[in-house]
Amino acid sequence: MPILTRPILEINLNNLLDNYKQLKALSAHAEAAAVVKDDAYGLNAEIVAQKLYNDGGCRNFFVAHGIEGERIRKFVPDANIFVLQGIGEDSIDSFKKCKLTPVIGSPEMFEWWKQNKIEGIKPVIQIETGLNRLGFRESDLAKLSSADKKEFGMVLSHLACADAKEHFMNQHQLDNFRRLKAKYFPKIPASLSASDGTFLGPDYQWDMVRLGAAMYGINTAPYRENQMKSVVEVKAPVLQIANLPKGDFVGYSATYRATEDRKLAIVSIGYGDGIPRSLSNVGKVFFNICGRINEARIIGRLSMDNIICDVTNVENLQVGDMAEILSDYYTLDDMGRDAGTISYEILSRIGKNTRYIRKYIGK
Amino acid sequence: MPILTRPILEINLNNLLDNYKQLKALSAHAEAAAVVKDDAYGLNAEIVAQKLYNDGGCRNFFVAHGIEGERIRKFVPDANIFVLQGIGEDSIDSFKKCKLTPVIGSPEMFEWWKQNKIEGIKPVIQIETGLNRLGFRESDLAKLSSADKKEFGMVLSHLACADAKEHFMNQHQLDNFRRLKAKYFPKIPASLSASDGTFLGPDYQWDMVRLGAAMYGINTAPYRENQMKSVVEVKAPVLQIANLPKGDFVGYSATYRATEDRKLAIVSIGYGDGIPRSLSNVGKVFFNICGRINEARIIGRLSMDNIICDVTNVENLQVGDMAEILSDYYTLDDMGRDAGTISYEILSRIGKNTRYIRKYIGK
Repeated sequence: MPILTRPILEINLNNLLDNYKQLKALSAHAEAAAVVKDDAYGLNAEIVAQKLYNDGGCRNFFVAHGIEGERIRKFVPDANIFVLQGIGEDSIDSFKKCKLTPVIGSPEMFEWWKQNKIEGIKPVIQIETGLNRLGFRESDLAKLSSADKKEFGMVLSHLACADAKEHFMNQHQLDNFRRLKAKYFPKIPASLSASDGTFLGPDYQWDMVRLGAAMYGINTAPYRENQMKSVVEVKAPVLQIANLPKGDFVGYSATYRATEDRKLAIVSIGYGDGIPRSLSNVGKVFFNICGRINEARIIGRLSMDNIICDVTNVENLQVGDMAEILSDYYTLDDMGRDAGTISYEILSRIGKNTRYIRKYIGK
Repeated sequence: MPILTRPILEINLNNLLDNYKQLKALSAHAEAAAVVKDDAYGLNAEIVAQKLYNDGGCRNFFVAHGIEGERIRKFVPDANIFVLQGIGEDSIDSFKKCKLTPVIGSPEMFEWWKQNKIEGIKPVIQIETGLNRLGFRESDLAKLSSADKKEFGMVLSHLACADAKEHFMNQHQLDNFRRLKAKYFPKIPASLSASDGTFLGPDYQWDMVRLGAAMYGINTAPYRENQMKSVVEVKAPVLQIANLPKGDFVGYSATYRATEDRKLAIVSIGYGDGIPRSLSNVGKVFFNICGRINEARIIGRLSMDNIICDVTNVENLQVGDMAEILSDYYTLDDMGRDAGTISYEILSRIGKNTRYIRKYIGK
């Protein structure tokens, strides 16, 4: 019986590409830009951007920071790379060297830009329409000269509640965006929506949609079944199976006590691999034993390197078998719900850990 | 006014070394091993191990996986490197190449070891004393032959509740450890405690203590004030300051609404940098304005790249100022408490993100 000790992270680039194409088809009249910030949500921005550029024809990418743009530039040589957090002294060299386009979100950054312009780059202006995050407020827009306004190549905003189709904020932000664009930037292209807004239909798509979470398999339209394919799969080996006698405690701080004799499996993965500790006593793992899917509850606290789960009712489980941590039947969205957060945060964590045996499908 | 866009992570290796020395002094009769698993809790195991080896004289290191041992070997050439998750087919090459010592935690792994022994390596045996995680149960120990028992160079167990000084589990596990060691491994050295157990006094220290969390500045004895120095400091720039009109919402899903006119600061850090999203509407950041410390509440949901905070009462704040995210007055332990988790999980996340401007003090 082979004994593995490390968890496995499998990233399916073919599914990611299929998701991108499906989203692109949905937004036929808009450019389909790919969001690869945060190291492509932890999945490796170089690899993801290269796949989308080579096999998906993607020519517009969004990152958060200049340094992220610099990392992908050589894989997407003639694409636009937009930088959402904008430009500053800590990043201007990346912008110059790699021809990145800043998204300018405040009057102060714009003043700085005017002193530090880069030849041949037309920045994007971010305007505030209801999220109350980065962006020019209307009072800021009113102060721009007509020369100032000509500096910009695109106008952008971001929706707060687009994952809730009927939320009043969607129409409210769309109305604001329409009005502000018509008043201040009538002639340049516009971008309003990320993945979730793209599902709200053509009114929300404008000239460019910014496809991120849904492309990575997350359900950004949770009012209906997910239409995206899974991109990540995580498995981890069972290192030990042991009896848990009635009355015994499990894990740190003894937060679980057995009310009857039980059987435990100790699985080699933990929060040091990005699995949220808030799954303690709440989450579950799955075992596929000869095609039969068995659910096993996580008991006690998750620790840095191990999960302990109750396998009393899992027949024929053996040391060396793999626990399925993320799969088609327990998705990022399922884990996010059980962990009291969102799948975005979980995805952003997992791929950054170096202990995984990492496999890319379709690389 | 300089405009930065990236957050800053500062890792103070001198404080880490001081913590190690303080813990070492506390456990005078035991070897002071350093735990550098999970990439030294995200702080870079190569750098941390090198510092402890060169300047702290540390010659015993613990990691979780063989691959982690392989990464540090060249920086700690003649040290013992113990691997807590043990050995398997996926790691045996690392063990051979880098002379790593497996901690064997199950009978199945021991059987595998006997077929795959490495010349010159005496493994450690982990025994179960109450945590109900990895380790030989007494029924497993009873099956070992006397030749089997001679295979091992050290016996190890792990405490469940050592951060709670008066918890009955401490004495219970100590009694179990004493009894099992005397019965099965009377002649070899023993290790029972991590940082938290080390503070429980000489009875718990045995021949080797495994210093991790406390060395990184975490208060592992939270029943009294922390005696460790801070090792990590996180700051992030204010990209924008804006008015929030009464009645407006903030952030995704509009979870915060202003009941009066307020002032916002948008700070360039988020869960994509390892800051827990569970700090939404709960956590706080600090601004040091000319020596005066101002607390500012996080409002709305944390997003991947930004935190929005209420700076209505922060006088003289300017775009470009740095928000203090982790500091001497808002420590990892404080953030852990506010985020509904423990500082260990937060520390393990933060350092793995590549968008920080990263600075090491004392490298």
